[in-house]
This record gives sequence, C-alpha cells and structure tokens, in this order.
Amino acid sequence: MTMNIDVTYTKSLKPKPIADNIAFGKHFSDHMAVIDYSEEKGWYDPRIVPYEPITLDPAAMIFHYGQTVFEGLKAYRTEDDRILLFRPEKNFRRLNLSSDRISIPTIDEEFALSCLKKLLEIEKDWIPTAEGNSLYIRPFIFSTEPNLSLAPSKTYQFMIILSPVGSYYKEGIQPVGIHVEDEYTRAVRGGTGTAKTAGNYAAAYKAQEKATQEGYSQVLWLDGVEKKYIEEVGSMNVFFKINGEVITPELSGSILEGITRMSIIEMLKDWGVPVIERRISLEELYDAYDKGQVEEAFGTGTAAVISPVGELNWDGRKMIINNKQIGELSQKLYDTLTGIQTGKVADPYDWTVEVK
Amino acid sequence: MTMNIDVTYTKSLKPKPIADNIAFGKHFSDHMAVIDYSEEKGWYDPRIVPYEPITLDPAAMIFHYGQTVFEGLKAYRTEDDRILLFRPEKNFRRLNLSSDRISIPTIDEEFALSCLKKLLEIEKDWIPTAEGNSLYIRPFIFSTEPNLSLAPSKTYQFMIILSPVGSYYKEGIQPVGIHVEDEYTRAVRGGTGTAKTAGNYAAAYKAQEKATQEGYSQVLWLDGVEKKYIEEVGSMNVFFKINGEVITPELSGSILEGITRMSIIEMLKDWGVPVIERRISLEELYDAYDKGQVEEAFGTGTAAVISPVGELNWDGRKMIINNKQIGELSQKLYDTLTGIQTGKVADPYDWTVEVK
Ligand SMILES: Cc1ncc(COP(=O)(O)O)c(C=O)c1O
Ligand SMILES: Cc1ncc(COP(=O)(O)O)c(C=O)c1O
Repeated sequence: MTMNIDVTYTKSLKPKPIADNIAFGKHFSDHMAVIDYSEEKGWYDPRIVPYEPITLDPAAMIFHYGQTVFEGLKAYRTEDDRILLFRPEKNFRRLNLSSDRISIPTIDEEFALSCLKKLLEIEKDWIPTAEGNSLYIRPFIFSTEPNLSLAPSKTYQFMIILSPVGSYYKEGIQPVGIHVEDEYTRAVRGGTGTAKTAGNYAAAYKAQEKATQEGYSQVLWLDGVEKKYIEEVGSMNVFFKINGEVITPELSGSILEGITRMSIIEMLKDWGVPVIERRISLEELYDAYDKGQVEEAFGTGTAAVISPVGELNWDGRKMIINNKQIGELSQKLYDTLTGIQTGKVADPYDWTVEVK
Repeated sequence: MTMNIDVTYTKSLKPKPIADNIAFGKHFSDHMAVIDYSEEKGWYDPRIVPYEPITLDPAAMIFHYGQTVFEGLKAYRTEDDRILLFRPEKNFRRLNLSSDRISIPTIDEEFALSCLKKLLEIEKDWIPTAEGNSLYIRPFIFSTEPNLSLAPSKTYQFMIILSPVGSYYKEGIQPVGIHVEDEYTRAVRGGTGTAKTAGNYAAAYKAQEKATQEGYSQVLWLDGVEKKYIEEVGSMNVFFKINGEVITPELSGSILEGITRMSIIEMLKDWGVPVIERRISLEELYDAYDKGQVEEAFGTGTAAVISPVGELNWDGRKMIINNKQIGELSQKLYDTLTGIQTGKVADPYDWTVEVK
C-alpha cells in the first residue's frame, strides 16, 4: 500500500494528564488513526482524525459475533528526547495472525506501521517524559457490518488509539502472588488462545475474581486438555528458573506468543544462560520446589515487562519463590530490556525503531 | 423491578420488507428497547426509542475485551392474528447465565421480558403474516466503559432489536451435509461454550470455511479435550436416533443448552420415545452406522427448529443418513413444535406466551 494518509486536526487540544500518577488506559490523545475495509475496496481511506466516538448500527457484528482483534505496544521517550518503539513490526505481524484466526482480512503490516508513525509524529507531545512513563498504543480491528447472519463481516474498521500511562512499578518492583486456576480454562488447542481477540479476555475475568477473593493478584492458567501443564500467568507469558536452567512453556497452540517472551529467549541465549521452551507441568514445578530447585519465576508482557512471581497457591499447596524477592536474573532482564526500550542501554539486537 | 418503560416514537416509519423472500438478519423494525447499567444505579432508564445507531468511545471495552452476550427467539403470528412467543422466560434465564460466565451483572428476567412485550406491542405490524415467517428477536448486552484496564466494565447497555425473517425452509426441508471438524475447537469445559457470547461465534468461522470448501453446509464440533465426543452441529444442538433410541450429547460444560433441545427432550419423553442425554463418540456413531442402526439425525435451534442431517463426512469417512431424507420422527417433531409455536396445534405444555 502506498496510499496517502489524510490528516484532519482537532480544533481543541485536550489537557494532558499530570505525569506523576497516570492511571492506565483512561486518558486518550487528541487524534486517532482509522482505516476502513470493504470487500470491494479492501483496506481503504487511511486517515488521522480527532479522537471521537465510533457510531455503529445496533446490528453491527461486533456486538453479536465478536470478530475483533487488538494489539498493545508502547512508545518511549529517551533522555535525549528521541521517540522509540520496541519491535513494532512484531505487533502488526501478530495482529494479522490474530485476524486470520477469526476470519478478519489481514492488513498491510508495513503500511499499518507507517500510519502509527505518522500518528505518533502528530501526538508526540503525548509521550510522557517522566521516568517509567510511556505512551501505550492500542491498534484494533472490529467488524462493522449490520447483519445478524452467522458469517464473517464484509466490513471492518482498523483504528489506533494512544493512551499515556504511568510507571507500572510505582513503588519499585513487587513480586506478586498467583492463584493456580484449575476450573476455568483460558484457551485450548484448536481454540483462539494464540490470538489477541476480545473473547479470550472477557472469559478470563471469572478466574481473576477467584484469585482476588483469595488475596492473590493474578491467575496461573493450565492447559485446557489435561489441566496439568502451565500455560500463562494473567495475560503474561511465564518463565521459571529451575536449577540454573530457564524454562518457559512451549507454544502449544493455546498460548499467546508474547513479544517480550521472544525477546527474553533471545537475550538469554545471547548471554549463554540455558533456556528451553517445553511443556512443564505444575507437578514437575512443585517437585522441583520440594527439592529446593525453583530459583526464580516471572511473567512477561508489554505492560510490566517483567513481573516477578513471589508466591503460588495451588489449592492450598503454597510455594514461596526466592523469599518473595525479585531474582538476580529477573532483575537483569528487566534492567536490560527496559534499558533498551528507553534508549538507556545499547540495543545490540536492533529491536528499537525510532520515530522521527 | 417495577420501573416505567419510557417510550419515544419514531417520526418516520420504515417500509417493511416484502414478505416473500426476507433475508435473515438484514431488516430491523422502527424501535428498539434499551436499558442502561452503572455500578451506582444498577439497571436503569428502561426505554423504547427509535432504532438508531449506538455511539461508543473507541476505548469502550466491547471493542477490546469482549463482555457481550446475546439471545435469539422469535415472535409468531397465528392464523387468528394473535402474537405468540415460545418459552421466552428461558431465553432471559439463559441470558443471565451467559452474563454470569463473563462477569456481566444479571438483569431482572421478568422485567426484561416485560420490556420485550411492550416493544412487540408497538412493533406488532412488523411480525410477518406469511406462512413460515416470523419476527426474530435479538436481546443483547455489551460493555461500554471507556477503559483499557483488564477488568469487568462498570457500565453496560441492554438492547432488544427486532428483525422480520422469511421462512427457513423456502423449498421444503432439505437435509444438510455436515463436515466433522477435528482441528478447530468450539469450546472446552471451563471455557465459555455454555454461554451465548460473541467470541464463541467468531471463533467458529474458520471451521465453517473448511466445511464450505468441502461442499458441506455445517460443522460438527467435537469436545475440546479428547476430540472424540460429539458436541454440537453448527450453532445447533444435535440428536441421533439409533436403533429406536434418541441420543443427544449431555450438557458437558462446553455445550450450549438449547431451548429447542430441552423442548424436544420433553416432547419425546411425553410421547414415550426413549431419549437419553449422554456422551456419544463419533466412533460409536460410525459403529452403529456400520450395523445399519443410525436411523435419523438432526440439529435443533431457534432458526431452523429441526435441521435434518443427511450426510456426515469425517475425514473422508462418509455416512449417508436415512437416504438423505427427513426421518419420520424428525418430521413429527418439526410439525408439532412449529405447530405449537404458531398456534396451529394445541400447546399441552404451556410453552407459548401470548403478547396482547
Ligand atoms: C494472553 C496474553 N499473553 C501474553 C501476553 C504478553 O505479550 P507481549 O509480551 O507481546 O506483551 C499478552 C499481552 O500482550 C497477552 O494478552
Ligand atoms: C451454539 C449454539 N448451540 C445451540 C443453539 C440452539 O439453541 P436454541 O434451541 O435455544 O435456539 C444455539 C442457538 O441459539 C447456539 O448458538
């Protein structure tokens, strides 16, 4: 695609939230990017317009049969005032993989990225300067055809909205307690677990409720078939350091392939730390724990980057990891990755993309 | 709830579609019912307003994390011009069960039904008179809070829209060919299969694509755990008559409990036809077929009522059922059930509800 991106500027700029304590996902910038899709035209009319409501027919398919996918990434402001994205091409790649799973037409990934860059140029003042703050980027696609027939929509809309966010760790990194969920299932092979699609997230709230009631902050998900193998933690991928080796569940067909996950695997390999993707059962983890071999555990995702796991509760069987302290390797991964993302440390992998 | 339902009439009535050949789900009546929800007020401000677009913030949770449920039922016009609903209280019951699964607050079922009745009184001219036609009713709820945090929405909207539909069987009942899906999964225990929530439907399109490519019209879904047991057909429940006994998959935790299904079970029991809800594997079905015992097979749901299965294709293993003709029992069930629904035959079960 080499279409022009039409720009309509807003007439009144919004006040920006105060940098100190920005709540996640509640503030949105002045403009958004939009691209329409129809069967006849494909993706067409890319444009940047003032942030404004979406108007849809009550029969629009999004309300009835789903068909919506999304992504999440961040823009960081460096100390020397440059704007960096972290592997954004991977997000647009994954957006298309998600779309394919639920029969949404794919989009030109490079063009979608160029729309994002153009939007960021216009909205650059929305990227917070304070330490640990960033601009959260939410590309998403939803079905718009007004039709109650059960079939893929013939029309869609792609959008990018931007939301300034505060530091994830306002009081320093705190390891979290995790409830092991053995009743509700997040995803199963053949299902939609590999896609970032809305239905997966609404389906997860019930288990999160249980975790919260028990005083834990996240859910550990088991595989949907045997309810034995570890899949993810909350909406993060998960890693365990056991007896010197780092283990993360292999991409089983029901796990979302996180971009933080893939980056961490590459870094560990580069550092010569043994890392392996394979099935790991809860039973194996608890056995290793009993032998004193579970050294570190952490979730990975765009929001927290690294979220150390301090405690696990599997139906009353509790596991305290590394004395509820962040582990040495977890800390090093966190520092290096956030350092690369914010331009504070060199990027030997060529992961960051500067927005001029 | 004993709230007043406020009514705002439209200023311009739409033309009604020609009765002969109304496409499903494309025409909508002049008015719709709406109820809002907030944490502080609960469900409030029930009203009937002109059918009009929904306006939502681009960050509204429906676009990102799902949380939407729906129902489907029909209003029928009898020969003596009365308006009948079929077990509508079951639909509002199921709406609440669906809501509960994905953390949407439940609604007063009786009050929701009274809103529907009021809407139907106003829209009664939209109920087609032609044989086999009806007014399809779509209640639905969706999350509206503009917030990208991963947590249940604090605000929702409930709506009912109405769509006149033509006869499902324009050229008489035609048994359909079914593709057995062994790769994609519709639902798994612990997941959302028991709920009518959007994500389940978008997730099913890929398998439907495969069926269509093979020249079959629907998908037979297997259980997500062992990929052995029969669950549903398309978005219908499924029944088999084997050696004089009627078998339907038991509610396993991943099957939607159809209202047509429960009605058929009650009717068969009433008629003294042996009917059993239990697990049934594909292997068992094919074994019975080899012994010449598979007498009839049919899907059940609000849209088609009974949809006879004429052929099954399991990876090239084909099964032709009852010579691709509708079976005697299937026909009797169809005639009796549609007869009750449209007031043509007596309703010994007190299933129909008249809208005055
Ligand atoms: C279900 C799920 N797993 C894992 C992740 C982590 O992916 P990433 O590292 O790309 O943010 C996310 C969030 O993006 C997610 O939604
Ligand atoms: C997945 C699924 N199964 C079964 C059914 C049949 O249910 P009912 O008989 O209530 O229409 C439906 C449709 O409503 C459905 O969506």
